[in-house]
Amino acid sequence: MEQKRAVHKTIIRIRQGEREEKQDLITVEAPVTIYLNGRELVTLLCTPEKIDRLALGFLRSEGIITAIDDVASIRVRDEEGLVEIDLKCETDLIEKLYGKRTITSGCGKGTVFFNVLDSLRSSPLEGDLKISAGKIWFLMESLEERAELFKSTGCVHSAALADQEQILCFFEDIGRHNAIDKIIGECLLAGIPTDDKIIVSSGRLSSEILLKAAKLKIQLLVSRAAPTSLCIELAESLNVTLAGFVRGKRTNIYTHGWRITAD
Amino acid sequence: MEQKRAVHKTIIRIRQGEREEKQDLITVEAPVTIYLNGRELVTLLCTPEKIDRLALGFLRSEGIITAIDDVASIRVRDEEGLVEIDLKCETDLIEKLYGKRTITSGCGKGTVFFNVLDSLRSSPLEGDLKISAGKIWFLMESLEERAELFKSTGCVHSAALADQEQILCFFEDIGRHNAIDKIIGECLLAGIPTDDKIIVSSGRLSSEILLKAAKLKIQLLVSRAAPTSLCIELAESLNVTLAGFVRGKRTNIYTHGWRITAD
Repeated sequence: MEQKRAVHKTIIRIRQGEREEKQDLITVEAPVTIYLNGRELVTLLCTPEKIDRLALGFLRSEGIITAIDDVASIRVRDEEGLVEIDLKCETDLIEKLYGKRTITSGCGKGTVFFNVLDSLRSSPLEGDLKISAGKIWFLMESLEERAELFKSTGCVHSAALADQEQILCFFEDIGRHNAIDKIIGECLLAGIPTDDKIIVSSGRLSSEILLKAAKLKIQLLVSRAAPTSLCIELAESLNVTLAGFVRGKRTNIYTHGWRITAD
Repeated sequence: MEQKRAVHKTIIRIRQGEREEKQDLITVEAPVTIYLNGRELVTLLCTPEKIDRLALGFLRSEGIITAIDDVASIRVRDEEGLVEIDLKCETDLIEKLYGKRTITSGCGKGTVFFNVLDSLRSSPLEGDLKISAGKIWFLMESLEERAELFKSTGCVHSAALADQEQILCFFEDIGRHNAIDKIIGECLLAGIPTDDKIIVSSGRLSSEILLKAAKLKIQLLVSRAAPTSLCIELAESLNVTLAGFVRGKRTNIYTHGWRITAD
């Protein structure tokens, strides 16, 4: 059984000098601890659903696994907020590097790149995906339609993997990064190739979101919000297209605009 | 000289089938590395201004320092994104616990509490601060008025320390947590007592924001956004009042509503 992702709570609303009690729906934030080969690796603060995807995506983002074949077994204990993953290889070094630590919902995943700029040395993506602005707007509308937890609580991010026609998988999470990691985990589990896909996100595009996407060889990142300077620098150099402020029939393109047509 | 917090960039805007180049202002995201007693401790991704406050606030949030008296010297090298802090005591153990790692803008500060729920054992705050809803609205308006970087880029969070009448210090940062840590650093440097103050934030209230505030003995957290379930649980037990969705003349009160009057 999965944990709840929202809970009812009685709150006080003050409006125009009036004070009234009302029922409200609150986003659940919960700690999820990943055990690797029987030893505690890390605790993430997240929306406690699809935590197997979260754990797998996290391990992939951190470079601890590169394919589902690296994994011998996964066991989820939803009620306790535990995911136990056994790998086929030894993990002594990984555990030493990681220590035992808590990572917050905001994201903060201690990226693989000590100095983010190091990643500029990565080789640029190949791929000549092209898409119309109209399709980008449609994908953003689809994301917003599905964002039920956001509509009821106003307190989560959403992210989806899409092809040119539709959303293929969709997650909501209190952490921007967790939502992306859940996509990554889903792709690993379901064997979905990602190098011709698009990521659509409700949240700001910062350097670490870009790096997660670039590891999947995603050529296009679409967001309702804006990218940061470092995200743009990395996208420029890694040949990733960034479309931001996708709202209504408007979009801003920050890098590699040749992938997007105006129609 | 401080680094820039926003940069101009030529982007492509597509609107109603029209494609045009325009100048846009982009939020700067940059890595800032903290050296402790001559050794690299951690790299934060942030808005590169007031990075001495960020570093001090981070050390205080993590429990590495508890007062400015613990610090022997601070040296800021803005252009390289370095803050060198020497403490009066040895830090071998701290460095061993930390390793060398990067923390992302989203926040993710590997909190002191391995299991966040452990913090429930902390003792509840004392303090009988009372404030009217009208003053809360005024403080939120003041926050929004000052949020210049947000107005020009749409890509940062803001946070302020306030008393009942006005904002005392204000910071914008790409990371929700960084903005709070900058407040903490400012209070340490300027010797501002915090146990009778209020924190006002543009961002969602998650457990780690609550814990940072509770360490300062802040009795009231005010946000434009919503709190998570875990934030509410902790606030309930630590005697902190949470006011969320403060927009226009409306506010929701999630915990310890006795501190807020409807006028």
